[in-house]
Amino acid sequence: MKARLFYANPYHDSDLAWTTRFFAADPYLAIRTKNKIIGVFNALEIQRARTESACNDVLLLNDVMEAAKKTYGDGNIVNQIRVLAKQYRIKEFILGSTFPVGVAKEMESAKLCYTVAPESVLPEREVKSREELAAIREGNKAAEAGFRAVTDILKASTVKGGKVFYKGKTLTSETLHEAIAVAGLGLNAISDHGIIAAGGIQACDCHCHGHGPIYANELIVVDIFPRKQKTGYYGDMTRTFLKGKANESQRALVAAVASAQKLALKNIKAGVTGISVHEKVAAFFESKGYATGVKQGAFTGFFHGLGHGLGLDVHEMPSLSLRGKKRLVAGNVLTVEPGLYYPGIGGCRIEDVVAVTKSGCEMLSRYPYTWEIR
Amino acid sequence: MKARLFYANPYHDSDLAWTTRFFAADPYLAIRTKNKIIGVFNALEIQRARTESACNDVLLLNDVMEAAKKTYGDGNIVNQIRVLAKQYRIKEFILGSTFPVGVAKEMESAKLCYTVAPESVLPEREVKSREELAAIREGNKAAEAGFRAVTDILKASTVKGGKVFYKGKTLTSETLHEAIAVAGLGLNAISDHGIIAAGGIQACDCHCHGHGPIYANELIVVDIFPRKQKTGYYGDMTRTFLKGKANESQRALVAAVASAQKLALKNIKAGVTGISVHEKVAAFFESKGYATGVKQGAFTGFFHGLGHGLGLDVHEMPSLSLRGKKRLVAGNVLTVEPGLYYPGIGGCRIEDVVAVTKSGCEMLSRYPYTWEIR
Repeated sequence: MKARLFYANPYHDSDLAWTTRFFAADPYLAIRTKNKIIGVFNALEIQRARTESACNDVLLLNDVMEAAKKTYGDGNIVNQIRVLAKQYRIKEFILGSTFPVGVAKEMESAKLCYTVAPESVLPEREVKSREELAAIREGNKAAEAGFRAVTDILKASTVKGGKVFYKGKTLTSETLHEAIAVAGLGLNAISDHGIIAAGGIQACDCHCHGHGPIYANELIVVDIFPRKQKTGYYGDMTRTFLKGKANESQRALVAAVASAQKLALKNIKAGVTGISVHEKVAAFFESKGYATGVKQGAFTGFFHGLGHGLGLDVHEMPSLSLRGKKRLVAGNVLTVEPGLYYPGIGGCRIEDVVAVTKSGCEMLSRYPYTWEIR
Repeated sequence: MKARLFYANPYHDSDLAWTTRFFAADPYLAIRTKNKIIGVFNALEIQRARTESACNDVLLLNDVMEAAKKTYGDGNIVNQIRVLAKQYRIKEFILGSTFPVGVAKEMESAKLCYTVAPESVLPEREVKSREELAAIREGNKAAEAGFRAVTDILKASTVKGGKVFYKGKTLTSETLHEAIAVAGLGLNAISDHGIIAAGGIQACDCHCHGHGPIYANELIVVDIFPRKQKTGYYGDMTRTFLKGKANESQRALVAAVASAQKLALKNIKAGVTGISVHEKVAAFFESKGYATGVKQGAFTGFFHGLGHGLGLDVHEMPSLSLRGKKRLVAGNVLTVEPGLYYPGIGGCRIEDVVAVTKSGCEMLSRYPYTWEIR
């Protein structure tokens, strides 16, 4: 019998988390056979694993180690795998591409047969179940709570000498980060990969998290990707704001990005490739005079992918970019996030999340697009 | 020349984060030669990488891909590695044990020479620098803020019919989780592996995060391990509380754990093994009549390790447990967390963090041990 073998920290390996539905602070062994999921847990985790995990067989690490020691002289990880191979009559293991090479090499020495899966992640993860779609909607609700917090702060702030003041203090990116994080926590979600709330030139470097004062009349990109603690699923949304009064080039930039997103949403459906949708948006920006390229050492224009898969990883398959060669299928979940970045004008990105359907796509995120806050 | 090769998400591979000091949402390639750190970053990250990372050479992914395509016909990851091997005259790569097997196999096909490092993590990480000790202290400060929040809530709560009420509502584990998380956020730290605030029987399952009402006169284990967002270093501390009035067995249990921690702290110094300190504590508990073993299917007593290394990972080397065969050296950072768990009495764990010195150890965490709150 062939079986998939995992040895990873489930916070770091979403294939494992998807299979066992069980988070723990340390790496553990798990096996997925045709009709069974087997997990090996230490004394600290086994009680939780019995009640919370999707494993059919929950084994105690100590027992497996003892058996390994008895049969092979050492309770190490590779001998544990030998014990499991024997117990479950597994002739060949399939390893994910991120399986640790150190363990794989020891398996070779122990004459344990394996092949490496051709895909970088479990392909089953690309088509989401009804429960997964619900979990991603919940992730986006945590992001939406963050946008509400930002909107409230910007509304309650005042402008003086080009600066923005909130509760008598200079408003900073850090103030926004904290308010967004607190809002997410209220819905049991945490931003474990950070939060972007960056204004002005900072927003042109589109993964800059932002730091220091927020200035009036400048575009502020707010990108929130919180993870629900219980399910492990992420939300991922972006809105662009401005406190004060926008100028004509800022208005045109935001309008172009908003139109680009609508164009993308109209073109997403089962059967099309990610590349094709990305290229439509790129061509649209070009047609509007928004060029993409390197200017004075900095990337400008639309220099990132239109979107990416979302689920237990904040970036997963399929891709809505030049790398998106596969045809989309119903149940794929994608971010749709066109953006334009020009030092001098500023940065703008608008991001929502959709589920691909046979005839189009269904929104999994919802928040107003009001951006200019006086 | 030999060189260490990384291809990982730095949030998931602390060897990489330690080397480059650069967090990004996606995996990236990095190489450490004898005297240089080289990183390959996409257009989204490169500007941040230039200013924030420890890399001496910051290369643009697009450039490396183009070179790979030109020379080898495809810009894939293994061809990128071939380009870097040529550019930096690297004859043999050293891979960490968690390096992805999929890439290693492709390297074999491309005749790129590699060996797998014998250690599971970079051994340099085990001895912390002055900056790292400071970063871990900061992590613990975020935990301490959480304990202050819990103490404040328990003080402000009232007991009625065995239940605990806070601001007119039943106090729950979830209320404590949120208050702890918010307190950590105020110091720019997030609990990305969860928070434990578990009372009564839940606290006997020592990795149970806790859920539902907190009851009066029951031990509540609060374990907080927040990660500082900027540095990536963790704090890790535990205090045990009780709202109401403790009984004699609870008092004896808490006193035994507190004495065990003092005993451990007295015995930690450079030159001793982790096992030896763990075993002293285990023997102390036995001598006090606190047996360890399985009772009615549940682990009871002192059934986890006394402590673990702490740094960019919440659990890292060296180990203060039966697995701790190596002798401690000055600069090791360890949690010291004896615990006892008995259904009927409850669970108690007290955890602080120390840096090993030549003659003893230095505390990196500080919070009062007051536990019974009337």
